[in-house]
Amino acid sequence: MTSSTTVRTGTRTIRLGADIGGTKTEVVAIDDHNNVLHTLRRPTGFGKDQVLGTLFGLVRDVLGAETLLDRPVAGLGIGIPGIVDTDSGTVANAVNVGLKDLALGSVVTSALGLPVSVENDVNAAAVGAHHLLGAGQATGTSAYLNLGTGLAAGFVSNGQLVRGASGAAGEIGHLPLLSGDLDTACPCGQTGCLELVASGSGLARQWSGSGPWPAASLFDAALDGDPLALDVQQRFFAGVAAAVRVLGLTFDPGVIYIGGGLNSLGQPLLSGIRQELARAGAASPFLAGLALGHRVRLVPPGLPTGSVGAAICGNNS
Amino acid sequence: MTSSTTVRTGTRTIRLGADIGGTKTEVVAIDDHNNVLHTLRRPTGFGKDQVLGTLFGLVRDVLGAETLLDRPVAGLGIGIPGIVDTDSGTVANAVNVGLKDLALGSVVTSALGLPVSVENDVNAAAVGAHHLLGAGQATGTSAYLNLGTGLAAGFVSNGQLVRGASGAAGEIGHLPLLSGDLDTACPCGQTGCLELVASGSGLARQWSGSGPWPAASLFDAALDGDPLALDVQQRFFAGVAAAVRVLGLTFDPGVIYIGGGLNSLGQPLLSGIRQELARAGAASPFLAGLALGHRVRLVPPGLPTGSVGAAICGNNS
Repeated sequence: MTSSTTVRTGTRTIRLGADIGGTKTEVVAIDDHNNVLHTLRRPTGFGKDQVLGTLFGLVRDVLGAETLLDRPVAGLGIGIPGIVDTDSGTVANAVNVGLKDLALGSVVTSALGLPVSVENDVNAAAVGAHHLLGAGQATGTSAYLNLGTGLAAGFVSNGQLVRGASGAAGEIGHLPLLSGDLDTACPCGQTGCLELVASGSGLARQWSGSGPWPAASLFDAALDGDPLALDVQQRFFAGVAAAVRVLGLTFDPGVIYIGGGLNSLGQPLLSGIRQELARAGAASPFLAGLALGHRVRLVPPGLPTGSVGAAICGNNS
Repeated sequence: MTSSTTVRTGTRTIRLGADIGGTKTEVVAIDDHNNVLHTLRRPTGFGKDQVLGTLFGLVRDVLGAETLLDRPVAGLGIGIPGIVDTDSGTVANAVNVGLKDLALGSVVTSALGLPVSVENDVNAAAVGAHHLLGAGQATGTSAYLNLGTGLAAGFVSNGQLVRGASGAAGEIGHLPLLSGDLDTACPCGQTGCLELVASGSGLARQWSGSGPWPAASLFDAALDGDPLALDVQQRFFAGVAAAVRVLGLTFDPGVIYIGGGLNSLGQPLLSGIRQELARAGAASPFLAGLALGHRVRLVPPGLPTGSVGAAICGNNS
């Protein structure tokens, strides 16, 4: 699996961004106006050797693209799921790709001879969405809500990533907001965490379904009126709406971008979230006044938010 | 009631900050290193004429202080409770002081001939706490949790106030996180809002008590083992701890400053919050690892966080 797109531009210096995901790794080259010049994707593999081998191969092939030959490279920004120390470029734990306590920044710098920055993947995607979907704006406030295996968010304020003090910024999936029947145990040790219903893993736990992707099968079954599917879907929408409300009443972002894989559910996902927000707003003029439903937008599937954001993060740090 | 302190300094240009509160208005003069040069406080009064009269009198008297005579004044920043449009300097609604749809910035500029900025009071206090208690740091991330009549927060990231898109940033008091018996109606139209238990108004609603201040009487009665007082206090601590957890899992601030009036409850307040956070962390290594209890600090009562923050906000905007 290798896909590729190329765009011409007049600027010389380029910057690379890599999004290392559980399934695939994507490397982009951008110019100093954050225009995407080249994109390559390949399966990530698992463990240090495979992850690094995939990354190095992609970087080599992107830099070997005809239009990019001999252009100066300012550096490489890497986005990766897990707990990252951005100061040292160390990955404490990236379970999905089998990395633990790896000085990723140093290792890649040694191998490629480039300045390297490392960022949490959701933070990188937040920066990418802000720039790619916000018409390149250097100001403004946006949030990125990642509906992937887990549930987490990233924030951009005045065009800058809001980095927390301990790597826990945006971990709203572990806010224990569920009650009653939903007050079940989360692997984090708390009970009733939002992630238990409002994430890919939450859906997979509640719905075995058929086909390669439980979420798609769930949405299909709900459309057919399956009572369990409707229940699970309703809890999912309510959980995502609760997450959106948390974002609205903390960061108050002008736009909330939904990405992370489940965004490929498309319009039915967006409609379900907006309906839940409208229902909550019907009882509360305060909440309705925030117009949170209007702030929610889907990231178009395939848009390289993670890799472009990683490249931009590297440039700013 | 007029209190006053004066400190000498060598810098010339000064900046004024005003904190207009439901009870009193405070005006400070600071130098360009954010050192406090002079402070005056008086009862605010109610309605446009009294609020403005108090403010103008305080500004005149601060500028008339012997050490400040003839020093150039860069401007005045005003912090005020309620919904503020910082771009236009308009106060949409400040219920506690009886102002509605007032172009406060323009009115004060016309009267005093100074550049004027207007900021929400909790945001201003967040900036003030960050600078006064963070050793004047221009970097770093902190949150300010206001335990006053209501419950709200302000955020500083990289030394800058995080302003939301619609004035709802930090309105965590209206996150409907309470369940079961506590799932009661909030004036905002939702049910189970945190503010119903974790605020001065929440305490007053549940505890009539004796003396001028229900919170102090409640804490005294709880110390004497009164069952109702212990219940109300426990709900209060749990609610504040939930608010702290929301701050930790959204902004992940390095420090969480507690101010807003109830902070004068002092050590018993801090201990109660930390105990609740420890209890929640006992079940969750994830939560315990965030060490939120260690991040919580009380703003010393009387510290002019609101007025100094307003002066600094004005300087940066």
